[in-house]
Amino acid sequence: MYQWFVAPLCLLLIGSCGGQYEPTWESIDSRPLPEWFDQAKFGIFIHWGVFSVPSYGSEWFWWYWQGQKFPSYVSFMEKNYPPGFTYADFAAQFRAEFFDPKQWVDIFASSGAKYIVLTTKHHEGFTLWGSKYSWSWNAVDVGPKRDLVDELATALRKYSDLRLGLYHSLFEWFNPLYRADADNKFNTTVFPTTKTIPELYEIVNRFKPEVLWSDGDGDAPDTYWNSTGFLAWLYNDSPVRDTVVTNDRWGYGSICKHGGYYTCSDRYNPGHLVKHKWENCLTIDQKSWGYRRDAKLSDFLTTDQLIASLVETVACGGNWLLNVGPTHDGRIMPIFEERLRQIGQWLKVNGEAIYNSSAWRVQNDTVTPGVWYTWNQKENAIYAIFLSWPAEGYIVLSDPVVSASKTQVVLLGYKPLSWESIKPTGLKVHLPQLVPDQMPCSWAWTLQLTGVA
Amino acid sequence: MYQWFVAPLCLLLIGSCGGQYEPTWESIDSRPLPEWFDQAKFGIFIHWGVFSVPSYGSEWFWWYWQGQKFPSYVSFMEKNYPPGFTYADFAAQFRAEFFDPKQWVDIFASSGAKYIVLTTKHHEGFTLWGSKYSWSWNAVDVGPKRDLVDELATALRKYSDLRLGLYHSLFEWFNPLYRADADNKFNTTVFPTTKTIPELYEIVNRFKPEVLWSDGDGDAPDTYWNSTGFLAWLYNDSPVRDTVVTNDRWGYGSICKHGGYYTCSDRYNPGHLVKHKWENCLTIDQKSWGYRRDAKLSDFLTTDQLIASLVETVACGGNWLLNVGPTHDGRIMPIFEERLRQIGQWLKVNGEAIYNSSAWRVQNDTVTPGVWYTWNQKENAIYAIFLSWPAEGYIVLSDPVVSASKTQVVLLGYKPLSWESIKPTGLKVHLPQLVPDQMPCSWAWTLQLTGVA
Amino acid sequence: MYQWFVAPLCLLLIGSCGGQYEPTWESIDSRPLPEWFDQAKFGIFIHWGVFSVPSYGSEWFWWYWQGQKFPSYVSFMEKNYPPGFTYADFAAQFRAEFFDPKQWVDIFASSGAKYIVLTTKHHEGFTLWGSKYSWSWNAVDVGPKRDLVDELATALRKYSDLRLGLYHSLFEWFNPLYRADADNKFNTTVFPTTKTIPELYEIVNRFKPEVLWSDGDGDAPDTYWNSTGFLAWLYNDSPVRDTVVTNDRWGYGSICKHGGYYTCSDRYNPGHLVKHKWENCLTIDQKSWGYRRDAKLSDFLTTDQLIASLVETVACGGNWLLNVGPTHDGRIMPIFEERLRQIGQWLKVNGEAIYNSSAWRVQNDTVTPGVWYTWNQKENAIYAIFLSWPAEGYIVLSDPVVSASKTQVVLLGYKPLSWESIKPTGLKVHLPQLVPDQMPCSWAWTLQLTGVA
Amino acid sequence: MYQWFVAPLCLLLIGSCGGQYEPTWESIDSRPLPEWFDQAKFGIFIHWGVFSVPSYGSEWFWWYWQGQKFPSYVSFMEKNYPPGFTYADFAAQFRAEFFDPKQWVDIFASSGAKYIVLTTKHHEGFTLWGSKYSWSWNAVDVGPKRDLVDELATALRKYSDLRLGLYHSLFEWFNPLYRADADNKFNTTVFPTTKTIPELYEIVNRFKPEVLWSDGDGDAPDTYWNSTGFLAWLYNDSPVRDTVVTNDRWGYGSICKHGGYYTCSDRYNPGHLVKHKWENCLTIDQKSWGYRRDAKLSDFLTTDQLIASLVETVACGGNWLLNVGPTHDGRIMPIFEERLRQIGQWLKVNGEAIYNSSAWRVQNDTVTPGVWYTWNQKENAIYAIFLSWPAEGYIVLSDPVVSASKTQVVLLGYKPLSWESIKPTGLKVHLPQLVPDQMPCSWAWTLQLTGVA
Repeated sequence: MYQWFVAPLCLLLIGSCGGQYEPTWESIDSRPLPEWFDQAKFGIFIHWGVFSVPSYGSEWFWWYWQGQKFPSYVSFMEKNYPPGFTYADFAAQFRAEFFDPKQWVDIFASSGAKYIVLTTKHHEGFTLWGSKYSWSWNAVDVGPKRDLVDELATALRKYSDLRLGLYHSLFEWFNPLYRADADNKFNTTVFPTTKTIPELYEIVNRFKPEVLWSDGDGDAPDTYWNSTGFLAWLYNDSPVRDTVVTNDRWGYGSICKHGGYYTCSDRYNPGHLVKHKWENCLTIDQKSWGYRRDAKLSDFLTTDQLIASLVETVACGGNWLLNVGPTHDGRIMPIFEERLRQIGQWLKVNGEAIYNSSAWRVQNDTVTPGVWYTWNQKENAIYAIFLSWPAEGYIVLSDPVVSASKTQVVLLGYKPLSWESIKPTGLKVHLPQLVPDQMPCSWAWTLQLTGVA
Repeated sequence: MYQWFVAPLCLLLIGSCGGQYEPTWESIDSRPLPEWFDQAKFGIFIHWGVFSVPSYGSEWFWWYWQGQKFPSYVSFMEKNYPPGFTYADFAAQFRAEFFDPKQWVDIFASSGAKYIVLTTKHHEGFTLWGSKYSWSWNAVDVGPKRDLVDELATALRKYSDLRLGLYHSLFEWFNPLYRADADNKFNTTVFPTTKTIPELYEIVNRFKPEVLWSDGDGDAPDTYWNSTGFLAWLYNDSPVRDTVVTNDRWGYGSICKHGGYYTCSDRYNPGHLVKHKWENCLTIDQKSWGYRRDAKLSDFLTTDQLIASLVETVACGGNWLLNVGPTHDGRIMPIFEERLRQIGQWLKVNGEAIYNSSAWRVQNDTVTPGVWYTWNQKENAIYAIFLSWPAEGYIVLSDPVVSASKTQVVLLGYKPLSWESIKPTGLKVHLPQLVPDQMPCSWAWTLQLTGVA
Repeated sequence: MYQWFVAPLCLLLIGSCGGQYEPTWESIDSRPLPEWFDQAKFGIFIHWGVFSVPSYGSEWFWWYWQGQKFPSYVSFMEKNYPPGFTYADFAAQFRAEFFDPKQWVDIFASSGAKYIVLTTKHHEGFTLWGSKYSWSWNAVDVGPKRDLVDELATALRKYSDLRLGLYHSLFEWFNPLYRADADNKFNTTVFPTTKTIPELYEIVNRFKPEVLWSDGDGDAPDTYWNSTGFLAWLYNDSPVRDTVVTNDRWGYGSICKHGGYYTCSDRYNPGHLVKHKWENCLTIDQKSWGYRRDAKLSDFLTTDQLIASLVETVACGGNWLLNVGPTHDGRIMPIFEERLRQIGQWLKVNGEAIYNSSAWRVQNDTVTPGVWYTWNQKENAIYAIFLSWPAEGYIVLSDPVVSASKTQVVLLGYKPLSWESIKPTGLKVHLPQLVPDQMPCSWAWTLQLTGVA
Repeated sequence: MYQWFVAPLCLLLIGSCGGQYEPTWESIDSRPLPEWFDQAKFGIFIHWGVFSVPSYGSEWFWWYWQGQKFPSYVSFMEKNYPPGFTYADFAAQFRAEFFDPKQWVDIFASSGAKYIVLTTKHHEGFTLWGSKYSWSWNAVDVGPKRDLVDELATALRKYSDLRLGLYHSLFEWFNPLYRADADNKFNTTVFPTTKTIPELYEIVNRFKPEVLWSDGDGDAPDTYWNSTGFLAWLYNDSPVRDTVVTNDRWGYGSICKHGGYYTCSDRYNPGHLVKHKWENCLTIDQKSWGYRRDAKLSDFLTTDQLIASLVETVACGGNWLLNVGPTHDGRIMPIFEERLRQIGQWLKVNGEAIYNSSAWRVQNDTVTPGVWYTWNQKENAIYAIFLSWPAEGYIVLSDPVVSASKTQVVLLGYKPLSWESIKPTGLKVHLPQLVPDQMPCSWAWTLQLTGVA
């Protein structure tokens, strides 16, 4: 009877639709991760929404202001807005007048990222696409008057090899239907049935994302959200069933445990190998995902720090999802663009140590600090990425097992280097003396080792 | 499972809840109209909403602008608002900062009205109360930040003997859920199930209205709206089951045919007796129900015209529902207030010919134009209301059958008058010579006749 | 050297320009009042400006808010506007989008008025015309983006016989140049030299007003304002030197003493004959000259009260200047329009007792209350205007000296009436018995007496 | 009579005030430049104003939009603002809510600059201080509601050794008084007499700037502006007469010819020695002085380019005035802050080659490209700044005359280096082999040479 039930009706009635996956965690968790994701390594996260209008403090602005009533947020509103100004009133000022999706795609592609993840709807509930289920609280009806998701998705497909990922929040802080369910201890399911699930079908069918980045369980179990039911459809019958990947935020208790790859926590960066595929999402402005005007220069990670984080993440088997927060008028600030383009410059030289690589048997060198390893099975090469250039003129790599006859060492972007074996294992690589203009890159350098074990 | 189904669950399951009325028109239509309504005669209609912000043209502003694209509306927006300004953007300017419900009630009461009917939600979908089913598109979340329905209902109960009526639109022009159902030729019912019906339960349970003024069937049949199901609950189990009255706008084809009293059309005023109880709703500004700034003085009905309409309506068995459109900042304009208070002055003198009266066997005099009759069964009196004072010094009433011994004639607000019988029936009443200050009232005068048939 | 000194340079240098009037009060006061003004009797005052945007409390809004800091004004701003909102910020919202000068002129003309007086600049300093001396604080640069004075003046000349009057405030509450002069005890004259006087020349030269209604001396003497210098130019050399009239507000101490006609105080209505020509300026909303949204219906003078005031003023030798406050979007509210049109209806019947009349030897009847006399020398008629219609069927006029052979009495709008002389003087006039529709007018009635002394 | 004439009255009457300088260019130009300015070398220019609100295209926004009517500006307004929106309307949105003068001063000081120059009033006429002569068009009356000049000046004095400079535009594009004078071919001087000159006295007396950066002659000669009269007062009698420096933009034809130091043109950078003290003003965003949102990353000069420009300018005898454009909400964008702090890092190491230096007898090396010389008389040292690090391991300086016994060469931030003399003159300096972390700085390096001629 409900149009949004047409697709998964078989699920409701008989628990399966002839597809491979059943709506149980056991079945869902058994699906292998599509290969492309592990090969991609680097994505860009984009937090954009009505919170980009005040662009103060955090993308959790609404909650901090009217949920928690943090004094700094309350005072910010009192000082700068008329009495009675509501969060919804910000939407009219979300104009995106400078939003040029082609330019965004150009910036993202220049960074070397292989996928993007856009917040289609954050906990505020405002949908960046023209959702039928979010009337008057979406980017087509108010504010930009444009379908931002559609425009970015279209530009992505036309101008780049980036894959599309969509972030979507299950719950909404202030949605009265969600709150009523919560008051009923989630024994009623008006909210997911009429809002969350219909929206998920809508974005998958319309935009065909290859990453579905779920978030915001609102302390409700996956049974409330009917997550396994939805995922079974996604994996069995959706238009992206073959290539889509999802994360692990599908209900209270599912994080770091069920679903697709693990995110575990924001800025998850364990520093050691994790067997299940994981992703480190982090943000250039260390204190906020959404754009905020009160960021200090010292809050932005430097390119040095960013490259180090990327290298460490990839060495430990993770993907690296780096966030930028566009402004309400649709711009990616120069400080973000500069960081992204510099990462791209670095990847131009060192990309073969990152893309398509796997974690090696050792993640970081046992003896020399600041050296991280990756492994490219296909090239049969090991990569030792060192984060600072040693003053001694050589670098010790203690973990590779060398072969006098076969082992070759190349400084990526430069040329082969001489080396000598050391005891008990490993090698000492002689580094060239290079003035700044001769350096193949800045921030970190890679030694490609072939013929090692 | 849905909380809004808790109340009528019995209906859904077994088609009845032990109440008297079943969800069929036959059963619903069989309910007698609660007496108070016919006795009240005069109510005040209030059209207030987001349309009160542009206050241009009509309360159908949104539809005329973006649905019909009438040039005058399109041009009004182009000339006065930034590109991309949406109807939803008006909501932030609906501030109601001067809204004083006590003052409104004082004005309404002064008019002599016995009930009011407030637009809780017009076709725009914006709810004047804090509906759970209209998140961010209601007066508590945006704009006034006040529950306007609650405030007015509370003031009404505290300060007056006026009864509360609530207007509610079934459909919403631009609601995508409604539009999707319409595209499906109303074979899906997502919209009424998740929006209309839950709202109706909400307002009845919260505000306990004694008039429920339904409108806006959106060309969908009552079966789509589940109107009989809802009405069965309203009549059997709702908190106002004993006193509530409803109108006839409950689905395509039901108007002037099913439900409670008939409204038939806006400004319905047949000029002859109608057997089924009916109501003439009209508006002081002849061209709009909502406040509009472009009204000319000549668009406003004069007190003369208003009294004449009231008298004619009541004489023909109708109730008279006179509309005013408050401003977005919460005021009832002086021109409206003046009209209402003048009607009140007139009713102070002539009320006994109006309230609790019934249509008489003759509605207007067969010989003398501008004379309308009402009948008060309890007082056993007939009232002849004449709209202009004859220059001849007497007035001929040709329809009453007089009795020389019993018949008495009193000019309301003045004193008994002498009369003489005429042929074939009727009487000639001698009117006094009164200078302006001696007149009991202006605009129309009433002769109370007792001892006549 | 200053362009605004070109015209009056002769005055500055030699104290005279060959014109008739010298820059002294003795000389200025000696000028006879152009005849048209006393004949016109009735004008319309229009208070319009940035204060029409908040339209709260009074046209003195700015001063009460930020000068006096009255709690109600401070609180109004706090409740309704963002922190830091300035009075100047209101100007952008002064859009006049509904302003139709032709429609205004139609309303004014319909009232029977013979001149209008528009506030070209109130104490706020905002000029309704595009003044060169008020850059960015005038109606052409901000807000309406129209020269409101020019548009109204043009419409006036094209569509009516109304004469143009311009109100202009000498001082400006918050102008820092004025305030600096005030701090110097008006020993410096930067403000009048660079602002006030150049503006006065500008409006006289551009708009050729026939009334120049000065106001707002700011507690500074006329010598500070160089008022006599300006008036000498106005009377000797300006393009309106033959017909212009001015009032008496030209510096501290000049009111009711120097200049043109006397205004003495707002709502000046002495109730007895004043020899020097005077004007009673009053406003329909008794509590404000500018439009205010917080006016109650009871604050508006009724047509009854207005006609009584007009009659009393004219009988005592005054002109009657009735004020309306248009809204910021350019409308004259229906309540004002209705009052004005009703006055016009009354004047259609009774105008000959008002226009071109003079005060008679007696102002109000010695015996009968509510009877006021005027005299039309040309028609050689005396008019007795009575404010209530006596119940007795006759009215006693005790002051006219009748002549059995010559005296004739006519009820204006009706026909001659019979009368009889009484002792010691005067006459008793027999009034007809008229039903409402036969009355020549409402509110007050006029007896034209000829052949009396 | 005018208060602003009190100070220079003696000038007006007798052409001199007993001071040293007379109001002639000959006399004004004879004043020696206060020493501090040449020693300071590096200042920061700040373009801030109402143009920072649209922050589109250029600080010439108003002129390009409504003067030139450039299509991109016209279209920007049509797309984003309501019809009738004026430039003045932007002022209300100039809120400076994040403006923290202490933070600005911290950023400026961190850059190594020794003075700042703030636009107190650009051609738009909006004064960032609460000028008495710019009522309602200044930052205290509207927008920020703060005296931005005063706040920044106060913070500067309290927290840093930076000197205060004030930019001031003589003309104003759209000021009707200026335009009227222009129409009179500058034969009238209403505008400078009542606006420009009073403002200049006001800012000098109130803020005591040590740089007065005049601009915008509006095609009028200095005689129109009475520039020499004002400068005579500034040099003889003003509170900053001993230390103030001014530039050369004091009237049509004076640029690069009269006044204080020369600016000649924007981004003036002759590349060779100029005898008269000059200043190279340039801006990080190469296409605009004011902040503009449409800047691309490639429009921003890199730190590399900036250091090169600074070095070249100082070597040729100029001062370097580097511009940043703050946002309307009072922030200095991170991209600007990062550039400034990096320049500061460089100056920490290399400052002794810049501050207090003079041009040497040779500006750039005759043989080796990218080497610029400065000279510190007091230290008796010559500095050779090289913009790229030679791959050869040595650098040839062909112009210094060495002495085998006395000459010493030090790499600033590192230590003495060995060298050998070459023929016919000059020396070859051996550079150390340094890995990135050992480099004393990036971007450019300095060799201090003592004992050379």
